[in-house]
Amino acid sequence: MAKISISEEELKERIKHVREILVKREIDALYLTKGISFFYLTGFSHIATERPAALVIPVDGEITFMGPLLEVDHIPLKTQLIGDIRTYFDYPGKKHPIDYFADFLKDMGLANRQIGTDNMAGAAGIWGYRGPPINEKLPKAKFVLARDIIEKMRLIKSEEEIGLVRESAKWANLAHSLLQEYTASDLFDLEIAAVASHEASIIMKKTLGLNYVPQRWGRYPASAGFRGQVGEMSAIPHSIAVQRPMKNGDVLVTGAGADVDGYSCELERTMILGKPTEKQEKYFKVMLQAQDEAFGTLKPGVKCSTVDKATARVFKKAGFHKLMRHHTGHGLGLEGHEPPWLDIGNDATLKPGMIISCEPGIYEPSFGGFRHSDTVLITKDGTEMITYYPRDLESLSIPT
Amino acid sequence: MAKISISEEELKERIKHVREILVKREIDALYLTKGISFFYLTGFSHIATERPAALVIPVDGEITFMGPLLEVDHIPLKTQLIGDIRTYFDYPGKKHPIDYFADFLKDMGLANRQIGTDNMAGAAGIWGYRGPPINEKLPKAKFVLARDIIEKMRLIKSEEEIGLVRESAKWANLAHSLLQEYTASDLFDLEIAAVASHEASIIMKKTLGLNYVPQRWGRYPASAGFRGQVGEMSAIPHSIAVQRPMKNGDVLVTGAGADVDGYSCELERTMILGKPTEKQEKYFKVMLQAQDEAFGTLKPGVKCSTVDKATARVFKKAGFHKLMRHHTGHGLGLEGHEPPWLDIGNDATLKPGMIISCEPGIYEPSFGGFRHSDTVLITKDGTEMITYYPRDLESLSIPT
Repeated sequence: MAKISISEEELKERIKHVREILVKREIDALYLTKGISFFYLTGFSHIATERPAALVIPVDGEITFMGPLLEVDHIPLKTQLIGDIRTYFDYPGKKHPIDYFADFLKDMGLANRQIGTDNMAGAAGIWGYRGPPINEKLPKAKFVLARDIIEKMRLIKSEEEIGLVRESAKWANLAHSLLQEYTASDLFDLEIAAVASHEASIIMKKTLGLNYVPQRWGRYPASAGFRGQVGEMSAIPHSIAVQRPMKNGDVLVTGAGADVDGYSCELERTMILGKPTEKQEKYFKVMLQAQDEAFGTLKPGVKCSTVDKATARVFKKAGFHKLMRHHTGHGLGLEGHEPPWLDIGNDATLKPGMIISCEPGIYEPSFGGFRHSDTVLITKDGTEMITYYPRDLESLSIPT
Repeated sequence: MAKISISEEELKERIKHVREILVKREIDALYLTKGISFFYLTGFSHIATERPAALVIPVDGEITFMGPLLEVDHIPLKTQLIGDIRTYFDYPGKKHPIDYFADFLKDMGLANRQIGTDNMAGAAGIWGYRGPPINEKLPKAKFVLARDIIEKMRLIKSEEEIGLVRESAKWANLAHSLLQEYTASDLFDLEIAAVASHEASIIMKKTLGLNYVPQRWGRYPASAGFRGQVGEMSAIPHSIAVQRPMKNGDVLVTGAGADVDGYSCELERTMILGKPTEKQEKYFKVMLQAQDEAFGTLKPGVKCSTVDKATARVFKKAGFHKLMRHHTGHGLGLEGHEPPWLDIGNDATLKPGMIISCEPGIYEPSFGGFRHSDTVLITKDGTEMITYYPRDLESLSIPT
C-alpha cells in the first residue's frame, strides 16, 4: 500500500525523543499550545480557533489533550496516542478554560513541578481569544520556554517525512501541469486555478484511495494557482489577487502544492503567456542562473547565509540587485515556512534531512516578477531535487 | 456601481476614531502587529508570515508601515492611507527586524513615549518567527496593551460593513445552492465542494466586475463545502475530512461563505441524502427548534448568555443535552470567529450593529450532527436575517 501517512511507530519515536529531552532538562511535562505540534506528535489534526487547547506530554504516563468539548469524539478517530482527554464546554464559559487547564494540571500532579511550554500564555491566542497566562493560575509550578524541542526535531526530516514530501511533489506536479495546460488569454487566474486544483485533487484522492485524507483545513488536497501574480501584479511577490483576466504578454508566477498527511512540497514557476519578449527572456535567464547557483551551493555543512549570498551575487552581477525583494528560501514540511531560513543573517549550517525551498527572485514594478521555487532535500553528499517540473523558458512559454 | 468595498472615507473615520481614543488615553502612537488590523484601518491586506510587520498610527502625522521589503511595492497599489513605508530586507537578516523597528520608532520620535500595542512581543509571531520583545529595544518607551481599541470598534458593524456582509450572503447562497444541486451518492465531498465553489466564484467575479478582488488569502471568492462532515463524520463538529464518498442515508453538514472586501457571512445547513429516517427527522426538528428559540431571543439589550441558555433549554427538554458540543454562536465579519460570543459565560449585551452566527447544534457519535448556521444582524428593534437559504427539512432533503 502507498505510504501516505506517518506511521504510529514514528509518532511513538517522536514522543519518546521528547521525553528523553524532558528528562535531560529536568522538565516534568511539556505543555504545548500549537496545533501543529499536537499533530506532529500524535497525528491528531484539528481546527485551531479562539478555544484554547493544549497537549501535555508528561515524562511518563498518558498524553493528555485539554481543549473544547467539540473535539472529544474527534480525537479517538484520529489517534490512539492521546490516552487522556479533558475538556471544557466552550469559550469563554462561566469558568475560563485556563482555569480548567490549571485544575487539570493540578489533578495530574503538576501543580508544583517544572513545566516546559511553547507559549508562556498557555493558549495559542487565536482570533478573539483573551485569557490570563497559565502561570498566574499555577503559581507554584515553574514554566520554562521549551519551543525549541519540537522545532529542532522538525528541522531534520525522517525518511517517512521525506517520502511524504516526495509523494506531495507528484500531485503538485499534476496540478501544475493542468494549470499550465488551461492557462489562456481572457481567463481569470482564479478560474484556471480552480479547475486545475479540483481535477488534480480528485485524481489524487481516487488514486491514493480511501485511506487518503487531507489534513490541512481549508485547502485542496492538491492545488495550483497564481495568487494574483499575473502581468504587472507578478511584480508583487505576495500579491493576493489580480483584477483583470490574463492577456498575451503577461508574466505569470505560479504556486503548487499537495497535502500528504499534512506535509507539502513547494513548487513555483514563472511562465510567459505568448512569445517572451527580449526583456522577459533576459530577466528569466538571470533568475534561472541565480537558482542554478543556489543548487550548486546547497550541500551539507554549507551555511544558509552562503547560499543567500551566492544568489545575491548573481543578481548583483546582472545589475538586478535593486530588484530583489526577499531571501533565497526557507524550510518547509508541515508548515508553509519553517526554519532553516536561507538568509544572509542565518549562519546555521545545512544538514542532511533538511528540506528547503530554493526560490531566488527579481521583481520590477509595472513589469513583472521572475521566480521559480523548487523543493530540495539536503542529503548526505549533496541534494535531491524533490520537485521536478520543467524549469526552462521554452517549456514555460504558453503559445497563444 | 455595486458597493463591494469599504470607502476610503470610512477608513479615514476609523483612523480618526483610533486617534481620538489614543488622545483620551494619553497614548502617543498605536503599534499594531495583527494583519487584520492593518486591513481594517487602511485597506491594505497582506499575507502574514514569519516576517514581522507593524502598523504604527501616531496621534498625528503619517501612518507608518514597518515590514519586509517584499511589501514595498504592494502597499501603494492597495491604499493611499499609509504615508510612510519602512522596510528591512528579510527575516531573520543580519540585523533583526525588531532592531529595525526600534530604530524606526526612535526616528519617529517615539523612543520615550507611551505606545499602545496589540501585542507586547512587537511581532505577530507566525510560523517559525523568533525575536525579543520590542520593549527590550526601547527601554525608555512605555508600552501598554491596547488590543481592545480595534476589537471594540469591530464589534459594532457600520452600514458599509453590514452592506458587504449582505452582499456576501448572496454569493454564499449561490455557492450553497450549487452545492446542494450537485450533491449525490458516490461522489466525494471535496469534488462537490470544488465544483460549487469554482462555479460560484467565477459567476461572482464576472457579476461584480473588474473592481472585485478577494482579500482572504488562499480562499475562493465564494465557497461551499462539507469539510468532512459526511455521515458518521457529521457528528464531529470540526471534522476536517472524510475518507469515503457520500451514500444514501448520510446526514451532511455544510458551510458556505463569500469574501466581499474581506467580510464574509456564515451559512451552514444540515442536509439529508435520501429520504430522512424518523430518527434523523426528530434530531433535525429539535435542532431547528433550538435555532428558532435563539432567533426569538436575539435582540438588543439581551445578554449573550441568555441566548445560549435558551438554546440549551430546548436541547435539555428534548433529552439531548448530552449531545451538545458547543455554544450557540459567535460574532463574525473580517474573521471567521470574533466577539461577541453567544456563550453561557458572556453576560455582555447585544447591541445594534453586531453581526453574529446563530448555530446551536447536536451531535451523536456514529450517527450524525445537526446544525444550521445563519448570520444575523442585531438591529435597533430586533434582528435582520442576513443569510436566507431554506432551513426546512423538505428543502434540505436530497432525492436519490
